[in-house]
Amino acid sequence: MSYRVEKDSMGEIQVEDSALWGAQTQRSIQNFPIGVERFKMPRSIIRALGILKKGAALANAELGELPREKAELIVRAADEVIAGKLDAHFPLVVFQTGSGTQSNMNANEVIANRAIQMAGGVLGSKTPIHPNDDVNRGQSSNDTFPTAMHIAVVEELHRQLYPKVQKLRDTLADKSVAFKDVVKVGRTHLQDATPITLGQEIGGWVAQLEYGLEQISHAEKGLYELAIGGTAVGTGLNAHPRFGDLAASYFAKETGFPFVSARNKFAALSAHDALVTVSASLRTLAGALMKIANDVRWLASGPRNGIGEITIPENEPGSSIMPGKVNPTQSEAMTMVCVQVYGNDAAVAFAGSQGNFQLNVFKPVMVYNVLTSIQLLGDACEAFNDHCAVGIEPNLPRIRENLEKNLMVVTALNRHIGYDRAAAIAKKAHKEGTSLKEAALALGYLTAEEFDRWVVPMEMTHPS
Amino acid sequence: MSYRVEKDSMGEIQVEDSALWGAQTQRSIQNFPIGVERFKMPRSIIRALGILKKGAALANAELGELPREKAELIVRAADEVIAGKLDAHFPLVVFQTGSGTQSNMNANEVIANRAIQMAGGVLGSKTPIHPNDDVNRGQSSNDTFPTAMHIAVVEELHRQLYPKVQKLRDTLADKSVAFKDVVKVGRTHLQDATPITLGQEIGGWVAQLEYGLEQISHAEKGLYELAIGGTAVGTGLNAHPRFGDLAASYFAKETGFPFVSARNKFAALSAHDALVTVSASLRTLAGALMKIANDVRWLASGPRNGIGEITIPENEPGSSIMPGKVNPTQSEAMTMVCVQVYGNDAAVAFAGSQGNFQLNVFKPVMVYNVLTSIQLLGDACEAFNDHCAVGIEPNLPRIRENLEKNLMVVTALNRHIGYDRAAAIAKKAHKEGTSLKEAALALGYLTAEEFDRWVVPMEMTHPS
Amino acid sequence: MSYRVEKDSMGEIQVEDSALWGAQTQRSIQNFPIGVERFKMPRSIIRALGILKKGAALANAELGELPREKAELIVRAADEVIAGKLDAHFPLVVFQTGSGTQSNMNANEVIANRAIQMAGGVLGSKTPIHPNDDVNRGQSSNDTFPTAMHIAVVEELHRQLYPKVQKLRDTLADKSVAFKDVVKVGRTHLQDATPITLGQEIGGWVAQLEYGLEQISHAEKGLYELAIGGTAVGTGLNAHPRFGDLAASYFAKETGFPFVSARNKFAALSAHDALVTVSASLRTLAGALMKIANDVRWLASGPRNGIGEITIPENEPGSSIMPGKVNPTQSEAMTMVCVQVYGNDAAVAFAGSQGNFQLNVFKPVMVYNVLTSIQLLGDACEAFNDHCAVGIEPNLPRIRENLEKNLMVVTALNRHIGYDRAAAIAKKAHKEGTSLKEAALALGYLTAEEFDRWVVPMEMTHPS
Amino acid sequence: MSYRVEKDSMGEIQVEDSALWGAQTQRSIQNFPIGVERFKMPRSIIRALGILKKGAALANAELGELPREKAELIVRAADEVIAGKLDAHFPLVVFQTGSGTQSNMNANEVIANRAIQMAGGVLGSKTPIHPNDDVNRGQSSNDTFPTAMHIAVVEELHRQLYPKVQKLRDTLADKSVAFKDVVKVGRTHLQDATPITLGQEIGGWVAQLEYGLEQISHAEKGLYELAIGGTAVGTGLNAHPRFGDLAASYFAKETGFPFVSARNKFAALSAHDALVTVSASLRTLAGALMKIANDVRWLASGPRNGIGEITIPENEPGSSIMPGKVNPTQSEAMTMVCVQVYGNDAAVAFAGSQGNFQLNVFKPVMVYNVLTSIQLLGDACEAFNDHCAVGIEPNLPRIRENLEKNLMVVTALNRHIGYDRAAAIAKKAHKEGTSLKEAALALGYLTAEEFDRWVVPMEMTHPS
Repeated sequence: MSYRVEKDSMGEIQVEDSALWGAQTQRSIQNFPIGVERFKMPRSIIRALGILKKGAALANAELGELPREKAELIVRAADEVIAGKLDAHFPLVVFQTGSGTQSNMNANEVIANRAIQMAGGVLGSKTPIHPNDDVNRGQSSNDTFPTAMHIAVVEELHRQLYPKVQKLRDTLADKSVAFKDVVKVGRTHLQDATPITLGQEIGGWVAQLEYGLEQISHAEKGLYELAIGGTAVGTGLNAHPRFGDLAASYFAKETGFPFVSARNKFAALSAHDALVTVSASLRTLAGALMKIANDVRWLASGPRNGIGEITIPENEPGSSIMPGKVNPTQSEAMTMVCVQVYGNDAAVAFAGSQGNFQLNVFKPVMVYNVLTSIQLLGDACEAFNDHCAVGIEPNLPRIRENLEKNLMVVTALNRHIGYDRAAAIAKKAHKEGTSLKEAALALGYLTAEEFDRWVVPMEMTHPS
Repeated sequence: MSYRVEKDSMGEIQVEDSALWGAQTQRSIQNFPIGVERFKMPRSIIRALGILKKGAALANAELGELPREKAELIVRAADEVIAGKLDAHFPLVVFQTGSGTQSNMNANEVIANRAIQMAGGVLGSKTPIHPNDDVNRGQSSNDTFPTAMHIAVVEELHRQLYPKVQKLRDTLADKSVAFKDVVKVGRTHLQDATPITLGQEIGGWVAQLEYGLEQISHAEKGLYELAIGGTAVGTGLNAHPRFGDLAASYFAKETGFPFVSARNKFAALSAHDALVTVSASLRTLAGALMKIANDVRWLASGPRNGIGEITIPENEPGSSIMPGKVNPTQSEAMTMVCVQVYGNDAAVAFAGSQGNFQLNVFKPVMVYNVLTSIQLLGDACEAFNDHCAVGIEPNLPRIRENLEKNLMVVTALNRHIGYDRAAAIAKKAHKEGTSLKEAALALGYLTAEEFDRWVVPMEMTHPS
Repeated sequence: MSYRVEKDSMGEIQVEDSALWGAQTQRSIQNFPIGVERFKMPRSIIRALGILKKGAALANAELGELPREKAELIVRAADEVIAGKLDAHFPLVVFQTGSGTQSNMNANEVIANRAIQMAGGVLGSKTPIHPNDDVNRGQSSNDTFPTAMHIAVVEELHRQLYPKVQKLRDTLADKSVAFKDVVKVGRTHLQDATPITLGQEIGGWVAQLEYGLEQISHAEKGLYELAIGGTAVGTGLNAHPRFGDLAASYFAKETGFPFVSARNKFAALSAHDALVTVSASLRTLAGALMKIANDVRWLASGPRNGIGEITIPENEPGSSIMPGKVNPTQSEAMTMVCVQVYGNDAAVAFAGSQGNFQLNVFKPVMVYNVLTSIQLLGDACEAFNDHCAVGIEPNLPRIRENLEKNLMVVTALNRHIGYDRAAAIAKKAHKEGTSLKEAALALGYLTAEEFDRWVVPMEMTHPS
Repeated sequence: MSYRVEKDSMGEIQVEDSALWGAQTQRSIQNFPIGVERFKMPRSIIRALGILKKGAALANAELGELPREKAELIVRAADEVIAGKLDAHFPLVVFQTGSGTQSNMNANEVIANRAIQMAGGVLGSKTPIHPNDDVNRGQSSNDTFPTAMHIAVVEELHRQLYPKVQKLRDTLADKSVAFKDVVKVGRTHLQDATPITLGQEIGGWVAQLEYGLEQISHAEKGLYELAIGGTAVGTGLNAHPRFGDLAASYFAKETGFPFVSARNKFAALSAHDALVTVSASLRTLAGALMKIANDVRWLASGPRNGIGEITIPENEPGSSIMPGKVNPTQSEAMTMVCVQVYGNDAAVAFAGSQGNFQLNVFKPVMVYNVLTSIQLLGDACEAFNDHCAVGIEPNLPRIRENLEKNLMVVTALNRHIGYDRAAAIAKKAHKEGTSLKEAALALGYLTAEEFDRWVVPMEMTHPS
């Protein structure tokens, strides 16, 4: 390979000729060989840095802080970053400087060199575009990286999470309507309880997903406030006073989201509470999905010796040794994703508490975990929807058989004969293995006609 | 001691004569001797059960489900529960049935027996008031306990948390204004950075507290929806169709909070996502307080060999061996509370994911941890405010001394001579132990007059 | 109330006449009103401080650092602390100074005043016993409090945890033997699988408990190393060079555990990794108990529409609305304890990472959570054992019925006809709702005689 | 692209001609597009599956369960898997079936097809080697996947973790010796305390690392017990009775680690407590590293307005806006890794508690997180060592300056004049900004000569 010399304030360093990055990116490659295979800085952050550098150049030009022609070069190079054309030039990992400085400089260096290339200049010459003085103008890693974090998370929520969770919610909502007349045994404490419809049961899941989406959506609002304009410590030193607002408006235009410059830049650099809130809201969704996926696999358990009240698609052989076994694998993938999201969130919340003075230096690890949770939840919801939820069907013979055996319909008698007598009936039936009606009549608490009038499972699910 | 016989559907059991509780409470005492000393069901839950039973009796009476005179007796007894007069009769612990059934029955039994007492009846006779048929009318533990959870948490947020956090926020906001002209060294990565004012630094903390309070307040809204009306599995079996709404309106009247019956009762029994959200919002606040308390103790570190830029009250001798030592003990109590809140939240979120079918049976442990976090955060904010925050003062000589030594004011030169030359000046000064100005002049990049005009720390904190 | 004046290095302060504590305890009461009701410093820590002060006095006397008669007075007073007679004089809470200084001083002050009282002196006079110079001789809070933490945790493990978990393990081991011939359906992925015996199933739980106990026991060893002798920063300043070893030997004598002075005192003050390890080992046990308690409630689910292969004791009515319902409440209390232990452990591990320089100032919150986990796990195991495990019985009719329906015994055919043909049989039987044998014969893969010879559930559980 | 048809018990499916995998792997690709970019099943698991299949074939051959020539083919193919030559044929992700069945089948299919290829057969023909009947002989996913988990983690601990942590430990141990005479201010509660040597301070870190390594090493022992031999539910159905022991001995031979077949196979399939213990031990190490990395950056804070008692290597420019700024970036990468490890561990422990009956179906997510923690900790320790620890040097002028100002050397006077008088001296000096000696003499508690004799910082660090 052939190399060129790049330079920064620490001196010279060799960089592969084919690479567009500069000295600081190169130093980071050498100093942080940590988790290289799996922990590359996410694509969505690189894209967000592109959006940021483009908007910053436009704002600086508009404010007279940067010559138009420099801005245009930067915009052209940044557009390539946005489009993903220069991804190969972003080699850094998450576990680097805690401010994300090196990824910010990676963007500065690549955009400067690409712009230089476009202008026919010499790579590494910093002419006509200087990575710090031009691309990073009016900025610091301390305000750009958290700005990129917010942009990336907002974009990914809309791209990866909302549509996929919504799809699952819609499928389940349809099932809830479709099965609104399927009366079945309810279960509390894992024990037989009074009847519900399968539609009601699934409707509870839908309500959980809706609540989860609402919370994420609320949490997302906190991300619209961007650190941009705060520069090094939040004071905005070296940025034009209108730079933050104006740059944010360019980001809004580029992305379609209502980004603004944060009201308090000091908090925006030194804390990431809005991101912690987003992470927590993803965890709440994960908790809901855990409950749903567990219900699905328990309701589908069997085929002969479980609950077996629903059937789910058979997607693959379940066992390498037990022939013909089919397992609720989508539930398993989903619940594994859920515990992963819990773990990711634990890392985010821990990191969020560890800021000092004017900076929290756990930025990359925080955004990495939030982005991972978004992707995993989105992917898992889509797979669960496509390969499981769409195929949920009631196992009507089993549902009816179970319902008929259910002792807890005795509850309908409380209003007529009181709790104590109703309890006596249920206990007698349980002990003697008889039906409720038999026990009731044997005890003489009511007539057969009364029993039939009062104990009607379908009515018990929609009391009026 | 003398005993009377109480009875439930399982048979007879002896209860101390002086106790108002009945058979089921007694069984729980005997079956769950777990953490008895520290894990009594919180007072706020008992109060909420009193509010619930009162409102339920009024609603049932209004709907013709309960004779007026029965309702009046129940209301009178419930009022005593609300007021805390019967706390001694609520002996149960958190680690019992996961639905809170035993605490619901504890309330039913105590209110029934107290009402019987008021009516001149025989304790345990269930006449004229029956714990299940009358006090629990139209209810199940499965809807009452989560209802009480929501009522208790809302009340405690308003009683214990908001005013105390707000008090700390106000103190800090005042300090932020008072110190708005105290220019000092900023710090990022624990390293000297460009100047800020102490007012700005504290203002960042204020912004974090405000954000934290907003999130808790938002999360609280989810608690206004109550499970009441869902009874055993969410269908509302055995409750009058208007019971949930009407009872909730009585709770609203009693407490002043806008409680309503939940839109989806199935989710309200089988999941507690709104409570998980509240817990997470308390964790976010704890993360913010961790950062603030850490900043305070680091800024006050010393007295001679730390940062020492602020002073805090000396409240007690700091060491049993080092005479004259004073420690940032309020920060320590606060940060210990913060890690406890993180732990509490981990328990809540775990528990929240473990529901099955129509019920989540981790209710008591969930509400216990949320209530504990509320109390600890409230108490700690008040102590921190009263014994630390109110006494924060700048150590002006130290602040000035540090500011003068600060090399990072060189950043102001970027706009005039470019990043690379500015870096050369800072490095030279650092290496040779000189002032920036000396290094700048030695390098010949600017004149003394220019230096003085461009490098003005106070202006660097409010760029215009 | 009447008051006396107590004094410390900060000046005078009023203390209730009836209290034996001194100025620093009084200041702590006033400065830390945080979680007062539930977060008193645990009794086991107070006892450990008594053991420590007694041993320290004996060691100092032996080394000529303290006059014999002073030591004797201290020992007498400390013996009362050990015995619990002076508990009322330890009013402080967990959320205080992070070093536990105030609880150490509480012990110093109470022992000094009690010794003064015994000697006929004037409370608060520090004559003839001075809380710092005599009771705290050769010590600092920084080495005494972590020493007390270790002593308390070791004692409580032996008093509260080991015997109670062992009792549960023994009950289950007995059941495992008793049910060694009860062949039943195995379940993987919640789906029917090849047969096992109930004894084998329960034996898996026993193995988990044994592993858990081994790990806790291993972790406990790390607690034998005590900070004592390190004094303020680990150097042992102001302590006789042999003090640490000698004092530790007195603690060992008093408690019966092999305590020694830590090899590295700097780590012993600034980190509590051994305590984090103990906490983690308690979490592992909690994870095992979660699995076991879940298995128990699922196996006992029903009574008619669940798995229902075992029965457990009916301890209390399960529902306030559903008559005759019985729930697996011991499993519920246990699993709630498990999530609490997970939460406690999260707090401990977080706190354990937050030391700075020569001290970790999260000591009280760390030990509080570990002690709480110990108590809860011990109590819950005992309740679960006494009110559930001892009464576990197979529901033989159900077990047999399920076993007969089980399709997965087809696995036994793999060795004879290959996986693919075995799968075809199982799929056919499942699809057509027939028995395996019928499907096998219909497909012509084997004879009825071969089927009966090869498919023998009991033999499948003990292949040879 | 061209395709061939592969078949499993569900029917036919198209597979790319160039791929060696079969039908079940193909189904998994299509059904689980979850986190595809970052969550591929780790290489170390694939290698472990290779080791397992090789050993299993050898054991089966030795036991007469598999013809020698089949075993030889399997061994040859498995050797290629072990060596990493077939990695491209393992496309599956972590979030699949929770038993890892699909990755086990991936190994069975690839090895079968590769063996077929070697034998000149037709891919997908299952002749002469059948993925289930031959490669998976005597096995089930339920015992093979957890066996592979243990093998992979043990190998990676030895390859990635121990040597790299040990390297850091050794560097620090050398520094501890090198700086054994550098007396400096101690700090507790972030406040100045009695002196220690820099060697002692670093020695505390070394002790933490040693303890951490010991715990991991102890936890590792639990992994030597393998599930192999348990097959589907732990009973060992379809495996030769000696298969488990013999296979384990082949794994031991191949890897050099003392693997054995687990004493209790039921626990080995249904729980992964040993893996939870390993994860927890990694968390303990992470907690220690967090403390160490924090100490390093605080001790190096400045350059002018922090503590500044040590210097660390300047590896890269620290700021995109503040020229000349150098930051403790290795500490930042390390502490980010530590919070990630905490998060990973939270996921592992949660997953570990969620087993049901005969299987825990969170296997892939558990092992993924443990392997990730191992790699990150190893990489981070190496980077921290190479780019930071090796370059730690005392900043002697600053250390001496700080030491001279330190008031806490007053503690040395306790033994001579008592705690109360010593405190008065320190308070006077602090209040008046004088030296201790001046204050001492002014108060007349001792002579100048006594002061000089009693207050000798170096002696205070090694009391005798």
